Amino acid sequence: MPETRLDTARIRAAREMIDPIFLDTPLYRCEALEPGLGCAVSVKLETANPVRSFKARGTELVTSALAAGGSRAVVCASAGNLGQALAWSGRGRGLDVTVVASRFAPAAKLDRIRALDARLELVDGDFDLARERAAGIARYEGIRLVEDSLDIETCEGAATIGLELAGAAPSFDAVLIALGGGALATGVGHVVKDLAPGVEVICVQPAGAPAMTLSWRQRRVVTTETTDTIADGVAGRLPIAAVLDDLLQVADDAVLVQETSIIAGMRLLLDHAGLVVEPSAALGIAAILEDRDRFAGRHVVTIVCGGNVDPDAYRRWTGPAARES
Amino acid sequence: MPETRLDTARIRAAREMIDPIFLDTPLYRCEALEPGLGCAVSVKLETANPVRSFKARGTELVTSALAAGGSRAVVCASAGNLGQALAWSGRGRGLDVTVVASRFAPAAKLDRIRALDARLELVDGDFDLARERAAGIARYEGIRLVEDSLDIETCEGAATIGLELAGAAPSFDAVLIALGGGALATGVGHVVKDLAPGVEVICVQPAGAPAMTLSWRQRRVVTTETTDTIADGVAGRLPIAAVLDDLLQVADDAVLVQETSIIAGMRLLLDHAGLVVEPSAALGIAAILEDRDRFAGRHVVTIVCGGNVDPDAYRRWTGPAARES
Repeated sequence: MPETRLDTARIRAAREMIDPIFLDTPLYRCEALEPGLGCAVSVKLETANPVRSFKARGTELVTSALAAGGSRAVVCASAGNLGQALAWSGRGRGLDVTVVASRFAPAAKLDRIRALDARLELVDGDFDLARERAAGIARYEGIRLVEDSLDIETCEGAATIGLELAGAAPSFDAVLIALGGGALATGVGHVVKDLAPGVEVICVQPAGAPAMTLSWRQRRVVTTETTDTIADGVAGRLPIAAVLDDLLQVADDAVLVQETSIIAGMRLLLDHAGLVVEPSAALGIAAILEDRDRFAGRHVVTIVCGGNVDPDAYRRWTGPAARES
Repeated sequence: MPETRLDTARIRAAREMIDPIFLDTPLYRCEALEPGLGCAVSVKLETANPVRSFKARGTELVTSALAAGGSRAVVCASAGNLGQALAWSGRGRGLDVTVVASRFAPAAKLDRIRALDARLELVDGDFDLARERAAGIARYEGIRLVEDSLDIETCEGAATIGLELAGAAPSFDAVLIALGGGALATGVGHVVKDLAPGVEVICVQPAGAPAMTLSWRQRRVVTTETTDTIADGVAGRLPIAAVLDDLLQVADDAVLVQETSIIAGMRLLLDHAGLVVEPSAALGIAAILEDRDRFAGRHVVTIVCGGNVDPDAYRRWTGPAARES
């Protein structure tokens, strides 16, 4: 069993606290993708739910515990998906939810956070500035701060995906996981390494936002000054040491991919699988496109972790003009 | 209990014969759709599986029985989705599958049928001509002909969706079902009327392919000379009397919608729910768009029954140019 902050028995128990609407998501072969990729590809689809991402698996855990303990309010920083999930989970449990986000986050994500009755505060900076501001609100108001990837519920919520993968037959050779703050990668990685240790755990991050991958490679926290990627969901600059420690236990590899590959991945998923995905959710396909030899003949599962896109940007990425460029 | 050819106990038993990959599909509220529609909307998503439509629920039943009985071959006519599903189900059970389709069916559907190792025969005509040709092949080769909507497995396979709807909480006020040959409508309708009789069963067909709706309204088979709709999956001219009899038992209403509404429905599902659907799967949303007063304040579930589209046609329907028209 990998020695991380996570616990497989606790992850199994966590399923009971999560609305079933977020569990047991589709997992299936997409043969139509395969001629373009040269390997067997299955998708684990985390977009067909009320918040269109996997993040509610974690926020269900957080808000269940808060509501049981009599709390009335909660705050988080978010690139967009965590905030939407926390707003959904909190609303159902009578919690006042505050989300701090970058004003450069996709409008679709910000609109949905507001529509779910959360208080949305925007900062003139990136996700890591939003983290600082959210921490300040939590201190000032004396309420729970949800820190994505640092808080164990966010990792163990995501880890329930790993249970569903490990329980599936036939087994896979490798699982491709979007890497940002690390909740998804450490969560799924922990369970896979515990229950199906032969499966290769490969994290994928944009070359334009490589902080956690560089940290994993150097085995120490490496920060970057800026990020430059369309994959807004994974664009952090400041990796968390405790999360890196866990990632070092569970990841077999961490790879960086180019923006053009992310866009090509989004197009493939649209045209050959009928899936609308946000850039972060195309990272796995991008990794295959950039290294076909590595995956040739193997069976790979990629977690389609989110589908919240601005319609206009999505048309730009996947439309006919982009295809000709 | 509605008096149809279908049987709820047999439908429950049928679940055991269907690969679980096609069962217990996502069912969830899409609040982002609701400002545009004026009612609460849930989707039952039948596109996140290896054949991107609900049809495999029925072909799993057909091919399980054939394989158990020692059969080696099977043939069907198909607008595209049944053939793909039969090819998938048959391949897994060692059956030789022949599919007869119109050469005007979407290329994406025809390509997938071929890719799944089926023998594909094209006719220079529409679905109803393909039906004649498939029947001829079955007679000549002495093999099982699968007739969509007439064969009880195709209806009872689809009816397993009804079990999943009836078992869901909270309950719905109405269910919107695409109407073509009638397998989906009679299947889901039978179970809903049996287990949740208060839920209104509303069938939706394109005004450009209205044969079954006209038949339902006149309580006798009405045929049409031609069809004119982008909803290729439901474009039949020759309703089957036995299916009409069942539909008369289970449908509360059958409505016709315009092509512009179908396209608007596809766009709404793309932009606000992140779902790629074929035209047939947008019929329910089209019905709401055409009669908002009828649905105002109610909770409606629409079955997103298929997502097989030609990428270029899909971009035409949902792209920026179409939106401005």
